[in-house]
Amino acid sequence: MEKKDLTLADVGEFGLIARVTAGYAASEGVPLGPGDDAAVVAAPDGFVVATTDLLVDGRHFRLDWSSAYDVGRKAAAQNLADIAAMGARPTAILVGLAAPADLPVVVAESIAAGLAAECQALGCSVVGGDVVRSDALLLAVTALGSLEGRDPVRRSGAVVGDRVVVAGSLGGAAAGLAALTAADETAPPDLLSAHRCPSPPYAAGPMLAARGASAMIDVSDGFGADLGHLLRASGCGAEVNAGRLPRHAALSGPWALAQGEDVRTGWVISGGEDHALVATMPSGAVPAAIAALAAVGLGLSEVGEVVAGGGIRWTGLPPGVPEPGGFDHFRLAESR
Amino acid sequence: MEKKDLTLADVGEFGLIARVTAGYAASEGVPLGPGDDAAVVAAPDGFVVATTDLLVDGRHFRLDWSSAYDVGRKAAAQNLADIAAMGARPTAILVGLAAPADLPVVVAESIAAGLAAECQALGCSVVGGDVVRSDALLLAVTALGSLEGRDPVRRSGAVVGDRVVVAGSLGGAAAGLAALTAADETAPPDLLSAHRCPSPPYAAGPMLAARGASAMIDVSDGFGADLGHLLRASGCGAEVNAGRLPRHAALSGPWALAQGEDVRTGWVISGGEDHALVATMPSGAVPAAIAALAAVGLGLSEVGEVVAGGGIRWTGLPPGVPEPGGFDHFRLAESR
Repeated sequence: MEKKDLTLADVGEFGLIARVTAGYAASEGVPLGPGDDAAVVAAPDGFVVATTDLLVDGRHFRLDWSSAYDVGRKAAAQNLADIAAMGARPTAILVGLAAPADLPVVVAESIAAGLAAECQALGCSVVGGDVVRSDALLLAVTALGSLEGRDPVRRSGAVVGDRVVVAGSLGGAAAGLAALTAADETAPPDLLSAHRCPSPPYAAGPMLAARGASAMIDVSDGFGADLGHLLRASGCGAEVNAGRLPRHAALSGPWALAQGEDVRTGWVISGGEDHALVATMPSGAVPAAIAALAAVGLGLSEVGEVVAGGGIRWTGLPPGVPEPGGFDHFRLAESR
Repeated sequence: MEKKDLTLADVGEFGLIARVTAGYAASEGVPLGPGDDAAVVAAPDGFVVATTDLLVDGRHFRLDWSSAYDVGRKAAAQNLADIAAMGARPTAILVGLAAPADLPVVVAESIAAGLAAECQALGCSVVGGDVVRSDALLLAVTALGSLEGRDPVRRSGAVVGDRVVVAGSLGGAAAGLAALTAADETAPPDLLSAHRCPSPPYAAGPMLAARGASAMIDVSDGFGADLGHLLRASGCGAEVNAGRLPRHAALSGPWALAQGEDVRTGWVISGGEDHALVATMPSGAVPAAIAALAAVGLGLSEVGEVVAGGGIRWTGLPPGVPEPGGFDHFRLAESR
């Protein structure tokens, strides 16, 4: 039998685990990696940051739209971005894979390679996991991180007068999803890539935390929805200039321009899964934060101000833009 | 609409999370619980122990055989037992729930209550999670723990001459599963309960670690299979007296006796999911460990000795007992 024809049923649970963990390099800060009842991860300041997410085949990813490798990278990225949004540095992930017995082993191995690659770029690693049989393919990722002695940056710390800043770019993932949904083959590859595998500005999390961020969240449901979560937790509102939101570069190209300003702005304001970081911080802290992020190649945009009251007051919003909203997995009709 | 008729589609992802986390009491050692991008859990000695497991409806549990509450308790228990098997004390769990939109909210709430109850008895808590829509019900649980300054007890530390000890009891879960599979209504409720929700001897993990355990594993695949994992990792073998294995009390009752000695012994040696703890330790350390566990109401049985070579040499095995083996999720034909 050729390797490409091997299924999980052929190699078995333990065979798959042996194949996958063989590619996982040990990393600093992991005294004990995969292979025992549990892993041991360093938590030098005496605290560990932890978050978990599920990704379901056909809803959170499609293997006909994304490579298995990109599915793995994206699964890691969305969890690692949650760690960054606390102002922490990712240290390790754990992965559960539920898969049909006839899943080709190469698919499982490619997912595992994508997970490892996204971690490795951050100096963290895959330290544990589980493999079970199920009718549908599903990934469960848990990420751990270190605050390095800082306080966690919660959603609830914004105060009136703080500036609203965004690290990373918005709208690319939604535009890519729209192009894939419409089977529009003229769309720029960069937008398809933005949907298949986000590029969260991980380093911005700890840097903004160290430079006075009062609240922070990552954009998974959409900028408007996620800033809304932050504002509700903080008990205040915000005035946001939609024209200042950092758009994905490819949204300025001819394909995106042809979709119309309302559609483009909708992607930027309401599109999810870019995993940009939205933070609030005192206005005096913004210039130093911009300079610090620029020094490591990351942009930081000041897009608005925290105000009394609740919700978001938009300025700079073109006419015809849909009401900014978020995403609820059980309520919306769209498959996602 | 009555509360019992509410589905996940009615309350939505955020509604369910709000309902479920409302019941989660904060615990010591959790500076930041559910509700932000990530939780923060104390790791006082600078290390965190972490493990993850998936449970699939129809394979790892059946809602017609177990209450949703017991499904939650079992999902927590099997992960918390992995933490104990490292010699660590559980500190927190994170839970992913993948569920059909028409799942009654009361089922999700009962699962969540079971998870919380199993944690609460140990002074740990549910600190985070995720809810997504999927065709099948699945739980992904990650457990964290603290070594409290001790070294982790790995599978690989057994040395020739060590004794093999077992905390907790064996065979109850397999007997209960057999009774449920056969729809045998004459089986003792205690055995059904042992399948529905294990009672791992959590406290034995840190106690055995503190008293010189050289290697440890929890029984999830079966005593023979899991001791086999430990011995392979340690590069040695063991001689085990099957007659000394601590059987579940209800295996001495008339129902179990009527199943035949070969069947009963098979449950004890090869049955999974009891989450007893199997450890190796120097013979001189055994009496003090037995006394220490007895003082907190836990039994510890000396069942054999680590020897040179590989595999398990059985003594005290009744004739007709099937070859001890383990469980591989993809290879075996049984639905599990």
